[in-house]
Amino acid sequence: MKKKVLFEQGDYKWIMYGRDPEKSHYVIDTNEYMILTEDGATLMDPGGTEVFPPVVAAISKDVHVGKVHSFICSHQDPDIMSSLPLWMGLCPKAKIYMSWVWTGFVAHFGHEYAPNFVAVPDEGISIRISKNLEPIQLIPAHYCHSSGNFSVYDPNSKILFSGDIGGAILPNDHVQLLVENFDQHIQYMEGFHKRWMPSNKAKLAWIKRVRALKPNLICPQHGSVFSGENVNKFLNWLEALDVGSAITA
Amino acid sequence: MKKKVLFEQGDYKWIMYGRDPEKSHYVIDTNEYMILTEDGATLMDPGGTEVFPPVVAAISKDVHVGKVHSFICSHQDPDIMSSLPLWMGLCPKAKIYMSWVWTGFVAHFGHEYAPNFVAVPDEGISIRISKNLEPIQLIPAHYCHSSGNFSVYDPNSKILFSGDIGGAILPNDHVQLLVENFDQHIQYMEGFHKRWMPSNKAKLAWIKRVRALKPNLICPQHGSVFSGENVNKFLNWLEALDVGSAITA
Repeated sequence: MKKKVLFEQGDYKWIMYGRDPEKSHYVIDTNEYMILTEDGATLMDPGGTEVFPPVVAAISKDVHVGKVHSFICSHQDPDIMSSLPLWMGLCPKAKIYMSWVWTGFVAHFGHEYAPNFVAVPDEGISIRISKNLEPIQLIPAHYCHSSGNFSVYDPNSKILFSGDIGGAILPNDHVQLLVENFDQHIQYMEGFHKRWMPSNKAKLAWIKRVRALKPNLICPQHGSVFSGENVNKFLNWLEALDVGSAITA
Repeated sequence: MKKKVLFEQGDYKWIMYGRDPEKSHYVIDTNEYMILTEDGATLMDPGGTEVFPPVVAAISKDVHVGKVHSFICSHQDPDIMSSLPLWMGLCPKAKIYMSWVWTGFVAHFGHEYAPNFVAVPDEGISIRISKNLEPIQLIPAHYCHSSGNFSVYDPNSKILFSGDIGGAILPNDHVQLLVENFDQHIQYMEGFHKRWMPSNKAKLAWIKRVRALKPNLICPQHGSVFSGENVNKFLNWLEALDVGSAITA
C-alpha cells in the first residue's frame, strides 16, 4: 500500500494511504487519511472490510492503532466504513462521527457499536483532535452524492478531505498520488461526477462553501490529491459540469 | 418478526417480513420481501448484518434457505445488504443483482462474493425467476435517494417493491403492515422523503414510470405497504412534495 505524508509539523501530520497493488480488481480503490497529533490519531473514511488488513498494516507503521481516538465517516457506503466493526475491536473507545441521517442505517453493521456514534447535525460541527491545534470542521456536502455527507476541513494545515467529491477511477498502473496534469486527469473523474452526483444545486452549494475556505489541498477518497493551482482548476471544472446524468424524464 | 403474505397463487407467493420486536432501538427498522415460486426464492433487500439472524429464522419457516437463487439489492446502504457475506455462506451460488454503479463499492464487503454480482445497467433489466411466470423488471429509481437505485416490478402480481421510496420511520408500537389511514401516515414519511431524497427531477421521473405500471401494491423497505387507493394517494403526495431539504446555498 502506498503512503504519502501530505503535511508535517513536528508530531502533527496528515498521511494518505492508498493504491494497494495487491487489491482485487473487483474492488474500487480507496484512499484512507490519518491526522496524527501528539494526542492520538483521527482516521477519515477507514475503508471497507476488504481493505482492513492492508490498511491496519500500513497505519501501524505510523501509530499504535490503539491511539486512534476518532473515526470520521463522510457517508455510509460500504467502501467508506464497512471495516468499522473490525476497527472497534482494536479501538473500542473511539468515537465515530457521521451524519445524523445515517446512524440508524450504519447500526445495521452491528448495534453494539452504536453507543460510539456521534450524530453530526446538517450544519456540521467542530472537533478538537488535539489540545494544541484549532478544531477541525465538518463541512456540509449533502447530496454529493450521499444524502448525509460531510467534507473535513483542517484550518491548521488548510487541508480539505472531500470524500467522494473529486474522486477519480484510475487505471491500475497510475502511480501518482498527486494530480500532476489536471487536463489529463479529467478523463478519470468526469464519468464518476456526472453519474454519481445527483444535483447541480447541491454541487454549487458545496463549491461556494469550499472556495470560502481557500484550502491548500483537496483530498478525495478515490483517486489523486489536488494541490496548488489544481485546487481552483478542480473547483472551476466541477462548477461547469452538468451532473445527474441518469435522470431520464 | 412479523410476516404478511401479500399475494398467493398456488406455489407463487409474495411475503413481507419486518417489525422485529426484539430489534435494538439503535437500528432503523427494515422490511425484507421474498418472492417464492416452484423454482425457488428471490430475496429483495436482504437486510443488514444486525438483522440477519431473525431474517433467516423467519424466512426458514417458508423455504429452505438453500433455495434462494437471487438477491436483488435496490441500492448499497448498510441496512439493504450488509448481510450479503453471511447469506453467501448459505447460498453460495445465488446471483446478486445491483446497479453497475455499486459493484466495485459493494465488493468492499469481501471480493470473494463479487463473481456472483450481476451489474444492472441504468435502464434496468428483466429477470426470469420462474419458468411459469412473466419476468420481473428492475425499474430505474436513480437518485431516489441513491445514485444507482432500482425498484422491482412484478407484472404477474402487479406488486412494486420500491426500496427507500415510500419509506416511513414508524414508532415502535405501530403494528399495521399495511397503511390504513394515508393522512395519518404522512407524519412518518414526510421528513424522511424531504431530507433523504436529493432531487425533485429524479423523483418526478420515477413517479411517471410507476404510474404507467399501475401497481396494485407499493412495498417500501421501511414502514408500511400502500394498497388500493393509497397507491395513488402516495404518488400524488410525493409528486407535490419538495425534496432535497438540506441543500443550502
